[in-house]
Amino acid sequence: MEKQLFHRLDELYGDMVELRREFHQYPELSFQEIKTPKMIADYLERIGIDVKRNVGGRGIVGYIKGGKPGKTVAIRADFDALPIQEETNLPFASKVPGVMHACGHDAHTATLLVLAKALVEIRSELQGTIVLIHQFAEELAPGGAIEMIKDGCLEDVDVIFGNHIWSSFSYGCIGYRSGAIMASADRFHLTIHGRGGHGASPHETVDAIVVGASIVQQLQQIVSRNIDPLKSAVLSIGSFQAGGAFNVIADQAKLVGTVRTFDKDIQNNMINRMEQIIKGICEAMNADYTFNYEKGYPAVVNDSIMTKQFSKIMKNNLNEVKVEEIAPVMGGEDFAYYLQRVPGVFFFTGAGNMEGTSYPHHHPKFDIDERAMLIAAKALGSAALSYLSGNFEIGIEEEMKPLV
Amino acid sequence: MEKQLFHRLDELYGDMVELRREFHQYPELSFQEIKTPKMIADYLERIGIDVKRNVGGRGIVGYIKGGKPGKTVAIRADFDALPIQEETNLPFASKVPGVMHACGHDAHTATLLVLAKALVEIRSELQGTIVLIHQFAEELAPGGAIEMIKDGCLEDVDVIFGNHIWSSFSYGCIGYRSGAIMASADRFHLTIHGRGGHGASPHETVDAIVVGASIVQQLQQIVSRNIDPLKSAVLSIGSFQAGGAFNVIADQAKLVGTVRTFDKDIQNNMINRMEQIIKGICEAMNADYTFNYEKGYPAVVNDSIMTKQFSKIMKNNLNEVKVEEIAPVMGGEDFAYYLQRVPGVFFFTGAGNMEGTSYPHHHPKFDIDERAMLIAAKALGSAALSYLSGNFEIGIEEEMKPLV
Amino acid sequence: MEKQLFHRLDELYGDMVELRREFHQYPELSFQEIKTPKMIADYLERIGIDVKRNVGGRGIVGYIKGGKPGKTVAIRADFDALPIQEETNLPFASKVPGVMHACGHDAHTATLLVLAKALVEIRSELQGTIVLIHQFAEELAPGGAIEMIKDGCLEDVDVIFGNHIWSSFSYGCIGYRSGAIMASADRFHLTIHGRGGHGASPHETVDAIVVGASIVQQLQQIVSRNIDPLKSAVLSIGSFQAGGAFNVIADQAKLVGTVRTFDKDIQNNMINRMEQIIKGICEAMNADYTFNYEKGYPAVVNDSIMTKQFSKIMKNNLNEVKVEEIAPVMGGEDFAYYLQRVPGVFFFTGAGNMEGTSYPHHHPKFDIDERAMLIAAKALGSAALSYLSGNFEIGIEEEMKPLV
Amino acid sequence: MEKQLFHRLDELYGDMVELRREFHQYPELSFQEIKTPKMIADYLERIGIDVKRNVGGRGIVGYIKGGKPGKTVAIRADFDALPIQEETNLPFASKVPGVMHACGHDAHTATLLVLAKALVEIRSELQGTIVLIHQFAEELAPGGAIEMIKDGCLEDVDVIFGNHIWSSFSYGCIGYRSGAIMASADRFHLTIHGRGGHGASPHETVDAIVVGASIVQQLQQIVSRNIDPLKSAVLSIGSFQAGGAFNVIADQAKLVGTVRTFDKDIQNNMINRMEQIIKGICEAMNADYTFNYEKGYPAVVNDSIMTKQFSKIMKNNLNEVKVEEIAPVMGGEDFAYYLQRVPGVFFFTGAGNMEGTSYPHHHPKFDIDERAMLIAAKALGSAALSYLSGNFEIGIEEEMKPLV
Repeated sequence: MEKQLFHRLDELYGDMVELRREFHQYPELSFQEIKTPKMIADYLERIGIDVKRNVGGRGIVGYIKGGKPGKTVAIRADFDALPIQEETNLPFASKVPGVMHACGHDAHTATLLVLAKALVEIRSELQGTIVLIHQFAEELAPGGAIEMIKDGCLEDVDVIFGNHIWSSFSYGCIGYRSGAIMASADRFHLTIHGRGGHGASPHETVDAIVVGASIVQQLQQIVSRNIDPLKSAVLSIGSFQAGGAFNVIADQAKLVGTVRTFDKDIQNNMINRMEQIIKGICEAMNADYTFNYEKGYPAVVNDSIMTKQFSKIMKNNLNEVKVEEIAPVMGGEDFAYYLQRVPGVFFFTGAGNMEGTSYPHHHPKFDIDERAMLIAAKALGSAALSYLSGNFEIGIEEEMKPLV
Repeated sequence: MEKQLFHRLDELYGDMVELRREFHQYPELSFQEIKTPKMIADYLERIGIDVKRNVGGRGIVGYIKGGKPGKTVAIRADFDALPIQEETNLPFASKVPGVMHACGHDAHTATLLVLAKALVEIRSELQGTIVLIHQFAEELAPGGAIEMIKDGCLEDVDVIFGNHIWSSFSYGCIGYRSGAIMASADRFHLTIHGRGGHGASPHETVDAIVVGASIVQQLQQIVSRNIDPLKSAVLSIGSFQAGGAFNVIADQAKLVGTVRTFDKDIQNNMINRMEQIIKGICEAMNADYTFNYEKGYPAVVNDSIMTKQFSKIMKNNLNEVKVEEIAPVMGGEDFAYYLQRVPGVFFFTGAGNMEGTSYPHHHPKFDIDERAMLIAAKALGSAALSYLSGNFEIGIEEEMKPLV
Repeated sequence: MEKQLFHRLDELYGDMVELRREFHQYPELSFQEIKTPKMIADYLERIGIDVKRNVGGRGIVGYIKGGKPGKTVAIRADFDALPIQEETNLPFASKVPGVMHACGHDAHTATLLVLAKALVEIRSELQGTIVLIHQFAEELAPGGAIEMIKDGCLEDVDVIFGNHIWSSFSYGCIGYRSGAIMASADRFHLTIHGRGGHGASPHETVDAIVVGASIVQQLQQIVSRNIDPLKSAVLSIGSFQAGGAFNVIADQAKLVGTVRTFDKDIQNNMINRMEQIIKGICEAMNADYTFNYEKGYPAVVNDSIMTKQFSKIMKNNLNEVKVEEIAPVMGGEDFAYYLQRVPGVFFFTGAGNMEGTSYPHHHPKFDIDERAMLIAAKALGSAALSYLSGNFEIGIEEEMKPLV
Repeated sequence: MEKQLFHRLDELYGDMVELRREFHQYPELSFQEIKTPKMIADYLERIGIDVKRNVGGRGIVGYIKGGKPGKTVAIRADFDALPIQEETNLPFASKVPGVMHACGHDAHTATLLVLAKALVEIRSELQGTIVLIHQFAEELAPGGAIEMIKDGCLEDVDVIFGNHIWSSFSYGCIGYRSGAIMASADRFHLTIHGRGGHGASPHETVDAIVVGASIVQQLQQIVSRNIDPLKSAVLSIGSFQAGGAFNVIADQAKLVGTVRTFDKDIQNNMINRMEQIIKGICEAMNADYTFNYEKGYPAVVNDSIMTKQFSKIMKNNLNEVKVEEIAPVMGGEDFAYYLQRVPGVFFFTGAGNMEGTSYPHHHPKFDIDERAMLIAAKALGSAALSYLSGNFEIGIEEEMKPLV
């Protein structure tokens, strides 16, 4: 069945390219998508797929019910764009000023639509159901995934697969990883309230810059003292703004920063330690503070056993593709929410452009090697068919415990 | 002779008020004074005093040569205004938008002009010469004093007296102090050059905020560890600006601050320690830096023996005035430069306004009790006459050495 | 051949226990081993094995040449004991006061001797050579491995296997890991030379405690700022000794600590950053220093491809054993030196005692489940036979590179 | 009357020297004085003075009631010695092993006894009463002064004078100072309770060395940020002891240090800030602490107006003595307690030895120029007589307030 599918996808590659370029010219910002979901839904209906519109707001869900009974597998693609002015000279460059598909969601969407077309043609042979999740607003927290889930997009779904086209990863590769593959990326705002005054009379003030400097120093010790050295965590302060006049002691310091973790316990430990340090130092220095910690998307955590099987299947089925384990990626993705509810695998498909330099994601000159869509479609399709054929065990392996 | 002088000053008090209000309405910024020096010079010439114009640029120097031979004593008044929009409702408020005599230099000028008028009338009795130094640009470093000195205003001058009208000091008081009466007030700019990067990849960066925080902490230990606890010094950082985005490690941090000292050795020690700390920490952290330390006016250091005699003379001659020793003032004054060349005394004359709250100097609602001018004129005149009569010893007392 | 070997090992298990208990009663300290190597060499010769004595000082190397030509595989066991007074009530407890086999090297030795006996019996069938490395002085840096290697113990050796019996790991398990399985464990000594003086006159001193405190703070930021968050490193200061009298500023502070890493580049980066920070802060504070960094054993790094094959072979051949990937262990082992010269696999064999609590290694009540020796013998024997039979590829996998 | 007194003191100088040397040979430690107070009391009674023994424990108080009614003035001398092994080669060196008059209290006592002898001879002319306070235990907190006061030694006393012979101050000088002349010298003990653990597992510990380092850094910012730059304060940590093994994270850090201030408010501010910082940092870092702050003797604060008059009287009466204002001394003295109850003046009498180097107080080779006793006797006698003659006003001058 894979062979048949792959053959059909090869034939339909031109459609993929065309669709992707169409989406690329008419990008829409997160939570403002109108035409894109309509195009998606219309396409799916046109090829005979049952569709729910406005799922969780702007999402589209399609259902391919197989001819035989079986499990349910979901495949997800996101379709929103970014507030970036495109600077490529592509003939199909964005026609919307200041908005650009600079992260490849156009390709994700085209991939899934054409894969759906190929799958629907073999519907009768399928054991079970394939759910197509076209998600809005991945780029902007709180993201669309959580709303689509609330609105039922995972109903009856047993497992889920997703992929990200990646421009700094060579075309021809698929990257997988058991467990956490992408970090949670949180943001915090801290304002220290001291008491300003004349630079010559520090004793009548609470010097917010000095308090801020102490807090910066202490926060930098959380990772080195409070986090298991075998685990990962980052805390960076990106902005420190305080005072103005050279001879006036600042009454406020504003700090903004980010925390990255792959693990909920470590994330919570970071937050607790931060609060404790900020509170303690402010009390030590007679200052007040306001601290806002905004959790971004959680870490994207793949099912360990499924990921092992996924890698085997990829190696077997995608002969010319290099399938390799990758280090975790520090960025965030709201695919995390799906994986919190059902087991699944999120993976990266290399789209490093052969011609010229590859620009990173979110760059005004970002582009991809479009052939990556074909690999992604085969990978997602192959994973879904294997699962429905009963070729996947599920389960999280026990975490390795250090010997003492 | 003092009695005669004081009597005449009482009579001329109305002129003082009138002149001060005239100057108050037409304030001129530092280094931009045109009408003010002309008015001063014209007034002095009108009353029969030899005048040099354009001394050191915009200064005016008048010479009252006494009938008898003797020493030469200078009296100084400054005449520039500030870039402040006046917010008093005085009938004689500034007519120049955005410019205001918010520091009392109008009163200093009126005081000295009318004192000159009274002194010129007793010229024949004077033993020696009185030099009237009307200085421009006190408010803005590098100030007018240094240029006037270069241009010869202290030629043949043996001693100098100066006074500052002070709104937060009660009317009816004169404040004096041996040695340092006003601090040197310096300014520094430090830019830390790190290497920016993604907040999730600190190891590829040099985090300018962390470097800056370390430097703030170490600089705050200079006063507690490197300065004699019996001496005074202040180092305050008024501004810390670094970074912007929450998830980008800052490549630069800009710090601006001030140092206050009363003593050249301590000032130099502060500078050396700052440079050493900044260099050491930056090297420790792989950062570069640019450090600019701008010395402001030096400390205003009164001659110790003259000051003691000054206080006695004031107590004897100004019966209704409370003459008291004051703590040093942390602000700066370019009168310091005169005292680096010739011995003398700088003092404060209380002008705290009896009606309503007194606003501090440099405040848009700043005003004075004008009667302070009369006290200041008597104090300056009395000091000058006493000196010419031979009633002043000069000399710096040895510094007290601590018993070990 | 494995079956035959395993069967024979089962038969010889009583010998293993007896031998282990004999060694246990007569422990010898590192670099002071005399009777132990003699016993080992005598045993090996007795069973017909060619032996070199005094290899690298006190080591013993035995050679089992197979009946057929082939590769050469080494198996290593260490035989030194620790300066600990035994507190078990075992009938075979140490008879040497203050010396104890508290780390299981007695078991390692018994395991290898009995395995040798079983292997020598099937010598004619072996394709190639098995080298038995009985190493002295593993517990005390610089260790015996490096001297034995210099003296030729790895000559013609193609691959090596080693194992550690582990009391906090359940009996019945084998733990493996590709790449770094044990950390490098380094030690450093830092003395800060300030200038002492009276507590009331800090400005005449360089306060070594304040310098030390600054250095502690900055060192704690290396891990959080200068190390890739996906990698592991630890820097801990275990001792800070400075000063004495409450009112005397200390002229010296002595700091001692440890650094743990799994990677040479990170180890070197830690050292460089430490030196840079110590130098920079001392210069910032006018202090001098002496800094000694002693590298301990390097990280124990298994060959990635061999480790994968090792795990498969163990799973196939040792049916009742749970073979699992483990997290890296922070402690050090001089097996590292063998692996720097030839590829190989070091693994852990669970010896958690079923009865009563297991005490950690180096504890006066440390003991093992002796049956672990049988598993270890089978694992080592099986690995060696498989290798000689051509069942092992060798190679280090490329390191995973993070997607940017 | 002064002339008569001075003449008589000149005659009695030999007695002073003899007495001082006698005391010098038989020093007694603080709170262990037995023979010394007996000798003093016997001497005073012998010359006809009423004596109270065992005042406050071991003190002696003598009363010289004048022939005429008047005020009451006290003069104080302390008589305890130090636990130091004398290393001078003086013929009258200490005969008590390990005990030495290394601070000049022997001279203080001899001075006051002989002064008493001279005064008692002019008793009939005195207007009022002279109280001779021979105090035990000045060297060891809580000191003898407080007990003698409780026991009534200041009853009916109007004013008090005291002096310290000073070896690093030239013979021939008297040093005075209005207000605080000697600092309060306090001691503190801080123990930080963390949670120890393995150096490779910092996340399971609370690293007491890191907490201690943070506290050291923050404490060093009190002086620079929380104390008026025109005032004095010192905080020094003399001892930091934590941990031991290089690879074990310390569970405790012990810090000991001193605080010096001249002003109760500043002292209290220091204590409050220290507590706040220690509490805040410990809370920030999950540590506990015990903090003991022991106030030593308070600052010795002279009555301002009396001190000015004292300096005038000294200048008038002691023609060959250089009377100079001195910087405050950072050491402590329990004369402070007398001055908290009655106004008075404490001053320093130069005893720098003309021959050879002068050793500092508390040094095993400490010695004085004995002629200083004569100057001290004249100064104390002269001050007492002047006071009784009505030549002293009393009153604390208002503190100088800084102009803002």
